[in-house]
Amino acid sequence: MNEQTGGQIDEGGAPLLSDQDVGKQVTLGVDDPLRLDCGVELTNFSVAYQSYGELNAAKTNVILICHALSGDQFVSGVNPVTCKEGWWDLVIGPNKLIDTDRFFVICPNILGGCMGTIGPKEINPATGKPWGLDFPVITVSDMVRAQALLLDHLGIEKIFCALGGSMGGMQVLEWAVAYPERVFAAVPIATAPHHSAQNIAFHETGRQAIMADPDWHGGDYLSYDSRPHRGLAIARMVAHITYLSEPALQNKFGRQLQDRDAISFGFDADFQVESYLRHQGSTFVDRFDANSYLYITRAMDYFDLAERHGGGVLAEAFRGVDTRFCVISFTSDWLYQTAESRAIVKALNAVAANVSFAEIKSDKGHDAFLLEEPEFWKVLSGFIEGAAERYGLVSQ
Amino acid sequence: MNEQTGGQIDEGGAPLLSDQDVGKQVTLGVDDPLRLDCGVELTNFSVAYQSYGELNAAKTNVILICHALSGDQFVSGVNPVTCKEGWWDLVIGPNKLIDTDRFFVICPNILGGCMGTIGPKEINPATGKPWGLDFPVITVSDMVRAQALLLDHLGIEKIFCALGGSMGGMQVLEWAVAYPERVFAAVPIATAPHHSAQNIAFHETGRQAIMADPDWHGGDYLSYDSRPHRGLAIARMVAHITYLSEPALQNKFGRQLQDRDAISFGFDADFQVESYLRHQGSTFVDRFDANSYLYITRAMDYFDLAERHGGGVLAEAFRGVDTRFCVISFTSDWLYQTAESRAIVKALNAVAANVSFAEIKSDKGHDAFLLEEPEFWKVLSGFIEGAAERYGLVSQ
Repeated sequence: MNEQTGGQIDEGGAPLLSDQDVGKQVTLGVDDPLRLDCGVELTNFSVAYQSYGELNAAKTNVILICHALSGDQFVSGVNPVTCKEGWWDLVIGPNKLIDTDRFFVICPNILGGCMGTIGPKEINPATGKPWGLDFPVITVSDMVRAQALLLDHLGIEKIFCALGGSMGGMQVLEWAVAYPERVFAAVPIATAPHHSAQNIAFHETGRQAIMADPDWHGGDYLSYDSRPHRGLAIARMVAHITYLSEPALQNKFGRQLQDRDAISFGFDADFQVESYLRHQGSTFVDRFDANSYLYITRAMDYFDLAERHGGGVLAEAFRGVDTRFCVISFTSDWLYQTAESRAIVKALNAVAANVSFAEIKSDKGHDAFLLEEPEFWKVLSGFIEGAAERYGLVSQ
Repeated sequence: MNEQTGGQIDEGGAPLLSDQDVGKQVTLGVDDPLRLDCGVELTNFSVAYQSYGELNAAKTNVILICHALSGDQFVSGVNPVTCKEGWWDLVIGPNKLIDTDRFFVICPNILGGCMGTIGPKEINPATGKPWGLDFPVITVSDMVRAQALLLDHLGIEKIFCALGGSMGGMQVLEWAVAYPERVFAAVPIATAPHHSAQNIAFHETGRQAIMADPDWHGGDYLSYDSRPHRGLAIARMVAHITYLSEPALQNKFGRQLQDRDAISFGFDADFQVESYLRHQGSTFVDRFDANSYLYITRAMDYFDLAERHGGGVLAEAFRGVDTRFCVISFTSDWLYQTAESRAIVKALNAVAANVSFAEIKSDKGHDAFLLEEPEFWKVLSGFIEGAAERYGLVSQ
């Protein structure tokens, strides 16, 4: 297997990004293919990831970060693609809450993503053209199995702690259930054991917006040298509303006008919240692939831990899992409400698993896990310290 | 002024629908124009309405119904356009809660609408072409003033009771504040004194979806013989999610699949909730005009009773209003939450107005006001009976 940095062409044959720095990248599925839930087998596929800190000799200081729908592998420092801070830079770095002077932190770009891991915008070797909608529909379980192959490739047997928010939390849950012997501690944050009808409804609206854009060309837009920017921006705008709480929007914007003293009696962005949302939409399309958005939202909709691993009973999915959990939710998160986290905790308790639970009081909504939340950080820090001590990782 | 039924060409010169039965229709602004908030003056404009029951000799038995964003004048019986039941047929009709054997019930299609009242799809006399985006941006206040002109035209001085849900409730509030001497009783239901940042955000997303549709043609789609069906359907889908509560969606659909035993690993409507939403989108475009959707949502966003009538203080807007209010909200309505209704009640109390308030326990979300809700109906019925007695309308 090959490994390299900087987005060059991989000799293993997997098509890589040529114009973006995607961090580290490996080709997996060379000897054994990855069999996806849909039945398709992936061979010679690229997985991009970023790591921070040093792997200790015993390989026991591994922290796996699982990113969310619109996230990527650049959790700390500066993201080379967006030139902004990594999405969890507040928490991860030297001397930070997750101290990269102490831990080896690794974050893979998810399967189906668009930041160096195989996804619908990469070249399908069978046709020599971008996969588009010929890319197989993937699941959260597939994402996790690809990550397990990555860790195998890196010679990492066991993760000290897996953490992630939103879809990242789904991956954390899947990791603990599918590979309980490989995950010592798990922190699923602001997540759910399955997607609710409302979750699916919002995603479906976003997908329909993308597919309604004539520039989408049935998913084959790259062959037409076009991008469904309008549709993707709409999808992002819808989703973005769900990431913020109603009070947060009200406190931040209220009915304040944007660069004007009075309403314009027109359809410009009179209100700050309109301007903000348009900005969210237009910047997203510069960094994200529309088909990836379709595939990843679909994987989230399909996520149902109880159905897949417990015969429909969530507790059964967790039976025999020795991983110690810290489940965290936020009071104002209406996308994945505390009730969803409680369902996870209840199921874990039902099989006498090791679980702690914290509902953090916050008015920041779902995005609270990405923002400055001292109470959240205190819980996170306390859990990691305790688990590290238990795992025999002596604090430096 | 002229009045007629059946959507024929009005001799007053206002362009009417020729292929739809819009109920009754009059031409207003013939002698005096209607000066809109934006400064434009409307002359010879059509207002369509429907009425049920008989106006008594004293003209004291008038109940005004104000419809919501996607509603129309057909509240009772069969809607001749959709061939379905009127949107409040459960409540209004002979021997029903609002008994049309007793009351004269009138519901006008709102200004900017698309069911016979002047709006962007009607012909602009200045150009001989549909108004499109040349139509002036209207406000809830404009809508109400047009309705007042309609009642003037019909010789109706005073409304016994004005009722409406959602944007209908905004009109009811505006009626009571702008014409307190003309409204004896008012029932604003599931509404708010202004649009919140989140409300504006959802509307803006819908508008962007419409305007992103190439078939929108800068609002001039009728000249191109096209319709932005895709964009309007997306807008409706987004909005529809906000009309239902999360528990209602979960109870109704959950994760149930649509006509299949297993997920398809594709982008079809695997889940019932997806199929349902697509249906909501596709049926809406058959009956609604995309530009009307832009104008009406804009009017809602602009709605701010305190700003317009109270110098920014809601209580001041209500000062001196003698109308008796019954404010009603629903526990699971997250679009216009109970807190919004409480703000109205608090402001009314602050100026010693006559107000009763009921928060109805319901899991049906915002749409509860349109659905079977016995507790809601009981409150409504009790208030109307009491007010009628007070008004001297003896029960038959």
